[in-house]
Amino acid sequence: FILICSFFPLPRPHGKSFAHRSELKQAKRIVVKLGSAVVTRGDECGLALGRLASIVEQVAMLQNQGREMMIVTSGAVAFGRQRLRHEILLSQSVRQALHSGQNQLKEMSLPVLEARACAAAGQSGLMALYEAMFTQYSICTAQILVTNLDFHDEQKRRNLNSTLQELLRMNIVPIINTNDAVVPPPVPNSDLQGVNVISIKDNDSLAARLAVEMKVDLLVALSDVEGLYDRPPGIDDAKLLDIFYPGDQQSITYGNKSRVGIGGMEAKVKAALWALQGGTSVVIANGTDPKVTGHVITDIVEGKKVGTFFSEVKPAGPTVEQQTEMARHAGRALASLDPEQRAEIICKILALINRLSLSTAKLNSLAIGLRQLAVSSRDSVGRVLRRTRVANNLELEQITVPIGVLLVIFESRPDCLPQVSALAISSGNALLLKGGKEASNTNKILHQLVQEALSIHGVTDAIQLVSTREEVEDLCRLDKMIDLIIPRGSSQLVRDIQRAAKGIPVLGHSEGVCHVYIDSEASLDKAIDVDSKCDYPAACNAMETLLIHRDLLRTPMFDQIIDMLRTEEVKIHAGPRFASYLTFSPSEVKSLRTEYGELECCIEVVDSMQEAIDHIHKYGSSHTDVIVTENEETAEQFLQQVDSACVFWNASSRFADGYRFGLGAEVGISTARIHARGPVGLEGLLTTKWVLRGEGHTVADFSEQGSMKYLHENIPVPQGSFN
Amino acid sequence: FILICSFFPLPRPHGKSFAHRSELKQAKRIVVKLGSAVVTRGDECGLALGRLASIVEQVAMLQNQGREMMIVTSGAVAFGRQRLRHEILLSQSVRQALHSGQNQLKEMSLPVLEARACAAAGQSGLMALYEAMFTQYSICTAQILVTNLDFHDEQKRRNLNSTLQELLRMNIVPIINTNDAVVPPPVPNSDLQGVNVISIKDNDSLAARLAVEMKVDLLVALSDVEGLYDRPPGIDDAKLLDIFYPGDQQSITYGNKSRVGIGGMEAKVKAALWALQGGTSVVIANGTDPKVTGHVITDIVEGKKVGTFFSEVKPAGPTVEQQTEMARHAGRALASLDPEQRAEIICKILALINRLSLSTAKLNSLAIGLRQLAVSSRDSVGRVLRRTRVANNLELEQITVPIGVLLVIFESRPDCLPQVSALAISSGNALLLKGGKEASNTNKILHQLVQEALSIHGVTDAIQLVSTREEVEDLCRLDKMIDLIIPRGSSQLVRDIQRAAKGIPVLGHSEGVCHVYIDSEASLDKAIDVDSKCDYPAACNAMETLLIHRDLLRTPMFDQIIDMLRTEEVKIHAGPRFASYLTFSPSEVKSLRTEYGELECCIEVVDSMQEAIDHIHKYGSSHTDVIVTENEETAEQFLQQVDSACVFWNASSRFADGYRFGLGAEVGISTARIHARGPVGLEGLLTTKWVLRGEGHTVADFSEQGSMKYLHENIPVPQGSFN
Repeated sequence: FILICSFFPLPRPHGKSFAHRSELKQAKRIVVKLGSAVVTRGDECGLALGRLASIVEQVAMLQNQGREMMIVTSGAVAFGRQRLRHEILLSQSVRQALHSGQNQLKEMSLPVLEARACAAAGQSGLMALYEAMFTQYSICTAQILVTNLDFHDEQKRRNLNSTLQELLRMNIVPIINTNDAVVPPPVPNSDLQGVNVISIKDNDSLAARLAVEMKVDLLVALSDVEGLYDRPPGIDDAKLLDIFYPGDQQSITYGNKSRVGIGGMEAKVKAALWALQGGTSVVIANGTDPKVTGHVITDIVEGKKVGTFFSEVKPAGPTVEQQTEMARHAGRALASLDPEQRAEIICKILALINRLSLSTAKLNSLAIGLRQLAVSSRDSVGRVLRRTRVANNLELEQITVPIGVLLVIFESRPDCLPQVSALAISSGNALLLKGGKEASNTNKILHQLVQEALSIHGVTDAIQLVSTREEVEDLCRLDKMIDLIIPRGSSQLVRDIQRAAKGIPVLGHSEGVCHVYIDSEASLDKAIDVDSKCDYPAACNAMETLLIHRDLLRTPMFDQIIDMLRTEEVKIHAGPRFASYLTFSPSEVKSLRTEYGELECCIEVVDSMQEAIDHIHKYGSSHTDVIVTENEETAEQFLQQVDSACVFWNASSRFADGYRFGLGAEVGISTARIHARGPVGLEGLLTTKWVLRGEGHTVADFSEQGSMKYLHENIPVPQGSFN
Repeated sequence: FILICSFFPLPRPHGKSFAHRSELKQAKRIVVKLGSAVVTRGDECGLALGRLASIVEQVAMLQNQGREMMIVTSGAVAFGRQRLRHEILLSQSVRQALHSGQNQLKEMSLPVLEARACAAAGQSGLMALYEAMFTQYSICTAQILVTNLDFHDEQKRRNLNSTLQELLRMNIVPIINTNDAVVPPPVPNSDLQGVNVISIKDNDSLAARLAVEMKVDLLVALSDVEGLYDRPPGIDDAKLLDIFYPGDQQSITYGNKSRVGIGGMEAKVKAALWALQGGTSVVIANGTDPKVTGHVITDIVEGKKVGTFFSEVKPAGPTVEQQTEMARHAGRALASLDPEQRAEIICKILALINRLSLSTAKLNSLAIGLRQLAVSSRDSVGRVLRRTRVANNLELEQITVPIGVLLVIFESRPDCLPQVSALAISSGNALLLKGGKEASNTNKILHQLVQEALSIHGVTDAIQLVSTREEVEDLCRLDKMIDLIIPRGSSQLVRDIQRAAKGIPVLGHSEGVCHVYIDSEASLDKAIDVDSKCDYPAACNAMETLLIHRDLLRTPMFDQIIDMLRTEEVKIHAGPRFASYLTFSPSEVKSLRTEYGELECCIEVVDSMQEAIDHIHKYGSSHTDVIVTENEETAEQFLQQVDSACVFWNASSRFADGYRFGLGAEVGISTARIHARGPVGLEGLLTTKWVLRGEGHTVADFSEQGSMKYLHENIPVPQGSFN
């Protein structure tokens, strides 16, 4: 057993609680406290078996990693009540039950069961259950029943301590509960007195005492609340606190109307602060949510943002939630600026960036992009798209406005930061930037320059750099605060974010399976397939599948197509149809839906343009698809029918790009059908709002008996550049 | 115990399996078969405790509903292997272990454990676990070990039958397993011989035999596969079958490359068909997915689309998946039609609807809407939004195209069906319609008329009516097939759909907390607050909160405002600030974020327009907000700064409506910031695509060494109406 304990890699000196959630991984000795709500079911008449089993599974896993786990459990009372009730029911005569009707079983009068009797009746069964469950993981358990007095009596305290030490040394998980059968009956409101009373309903103070006594690194307190809120949950704007510092205690309002329900939280916090003072980190979290029960403890130990983490050291700087709010607030001010002022900020960034030593080429292309954005910012926000005279003196306008708060997650390229910042400023959006760890120092400096530029018009906070400590997954949970996520990086990054961001729209695409179809009437000098594949094979707009009309097989043109690809060292995979035509075929494709991303492609044969379109619809990713033909009618049909974001005739698929399209800077390429589609520039960062100006018009004026009639005249709007 | 059994409301005569999933609710006698993958953990070295506990919880729940549950379990071998391995490890000397290094415990050489010995060692522990778990629900279990031979020997078969009947009669859950200790060792590929061999690894045939023998209504077979696919999973386009009919057997391809892995599925299907023939319905589903484990069995019994349901009777008509595919296919044809042809279809619908007897008023307004749509359909799909000369002879166009497949879910109003259909036709979108049960006959007739009109241009399938049997939740899972969901009904419906549709965008809004702010410089004859609240209090664009500038308090104007609301019998709630100014205040609001939806509103006092804006941003739902003032500068600031979909000056909030805006028919009002915002008409059902026409242009031509330069000249586009 000593052997197994030695697995744990990072024994740490006890005495100081952890400063960050990310350090919780190092916790060696952990107490998991299960409130009665966790152990019993919602209806309080039985145990939450599945929940308990999941928790045992996690505790066993952590124990088998070499940690020393202890469980402080509730539930004996509920278990005993269930058991006693069952015994009483059985002892009533079946005849009486039969006559009492179908649904009255639950209502059958039962004697009031005394809690201490229930606890005594339930304790043995509860322990048997824990033991049966832990046995599945080859882990022994031991039962410890304590009362508050055991901590006050020095001799008892020392005995308890050495017993627990011995059990932990032997790799045994102690299951600790209050010895409810001998404690006094619960006093009303005893919870509110905090750590001095061990309540029969609440084991928080017991867990806290035990944690400090045993020099525990982490106390995970699970009950049926999400964690600590800044005011009673249910009140407008009550917020779950991610981290709580002892100094923050004054900023919390506990419910004072309902002392019973919410007083429990105050007691929990007192117990947590007591443990924290003793050197034990504490997390209060919900152990009853079926969505997380299976991994709530391991998530906490892995440092994920679950529940409320109690920490002694308050880090400098705002939390990401505060950053988002600051950004939205300053973003609204940014959107209210004069367009010239926004342009000025972007020019200022350009001036500041010039001071940095970047390669001339990089700097040049960055400068061109920023200058374009400074120009186009003059005509982005507040542009009138549509104007309608609804009635006399009642005019409606649809105008462009920023989307709100954008979250841009980018990988190592730091030139992304000024570019994306300029896009956000130009479109009046607030921006959260999350860069890679590798470039965090560079990003910090670039961000300072951006903020310096923003400060000239008092909107410094509109662009926030999110700490590299924050996990992308946690950011994606801020669905009420962030309006759009834009990932800039590998398709793996995009896929991960699409998975994580359930509630927030993600702009982008994860796949680019682009096709070039060479028609029977193609001209060979338009062999743009080679450019499509070879110009930059890793790009999302590179060709992955070459579709060839059957009539071209065994023609000189066909041989030339293959030769040109071979000259560029493109590895060819054969589609099943193509393979069937060849005596010696190259390797057959595994899937016609493959994005190679290298000098590789699939070749497949089709009978007609219609078959090419069907193939593209079936296996494509609706990104970019190309036809090569001299027949205009065929081409127009292809352009009309192919249901992709970009459809090209006699042009390389590599043109699918914001810069090449003339959109200025590109935010990304979207294959979604909602909002922006294809290469997305400034336009994709705008939404609209409807402005109606009247003179006291009411809808009733327009009723059958009313005095007014709808006109709905279109008023021409001045045409700005569409950029 | 007989008493409890009698709870079950619908005893059914056995002998015929169920025709629809929805009938599974009636299943009285149910066998749950747990494959070894369900009972053991992923790594095969222990039991999946949490999983098992969840399953026990569901079985207990169903049993306590009065059903007769039986469990066919695997897992004794894995459990025994774990146990024997542990014993062997313990018997090795600790010294040896200590010297073998940290991570070698798992690699320590273990003797090959014979499966039958493992089964014998594991059986008792496994049963103890089931018993401990079921005891939590006051349910007794009984252990039954059988071999294949027990079914062949008539005497044994009868004994087994009567034993099980007796157990079921006593409300005991039999736990059945193969008596692995006495069966012959497993023969390779014995799975493939299906029902004739009871394999030590697979209890499917045992469960099927038992089900038929015991006249079981439903067999739920849980393993680690989602269900039956039409071809081996992993292959392109392999589809999970929702329902499988015996006649479909030829259309299934089982993997024939890897006989071991996928042969199991063939055996499962054989066993399922055998049970089906014997009158037992079968569902094969995944019992190992942590997302569904907690409710997989109860979901199946409730008729939800989980796994593959085996049914004898093939219902007429396509499945909803087939409908969606048909709709997308025909929708593409619809989008390719001439705009005139789409207009013609809509006029045809109008002509057909005229034959129905609807109230004249309804018919009139429907007719006006459809005629408008017929007109606007001439200028919706294929409109050029932007045209760019990228280079000589390389021209780029951004054109409007349909979104793809829409799902519109509407409540009882049947005039919704022709209206939404016309919108879809006009915008070239494919459409799935899901109406309420109350109007299903009306909807069927209306849908037939729509299809009749569609047939004149050969696109009959573009609009599909989804059977009322389909659950909304199941439709929302078709995220790869449906592009946009539009709920038309109560805000509860919208909220439910937003929750269910994780992967598909939902157009709409769930809340409308609209504000009217009366500025200090307001004119009383513009008291549009009364119209905003009283014109139609249940509408989402009705006022919920009236913000009043502090300067107006105790002025005659203030009294008049209150009087006018009182005359209309509007119940007034006071915001905290307003209440503090009054001696006798009306009831204080519970939350400033309340949508009353009736003749009730909240009144709150603000110090300035800026405070009004802050209030709106904090408590509003970004739907529609109004300012009443004579000061143009104040008004313009309000219109600019308030971040809502609709912002009005001196006009009733009730104008926020597609018809009143002059958009023609309205799809809904969106408060989202992505895609459409505010009242959504035809425009909101369109997206764009980029069309590039070249003469063999490659990107390489534009490189530094290339011969071409980007021009990016905007080419003016003809301005159509923006409708």
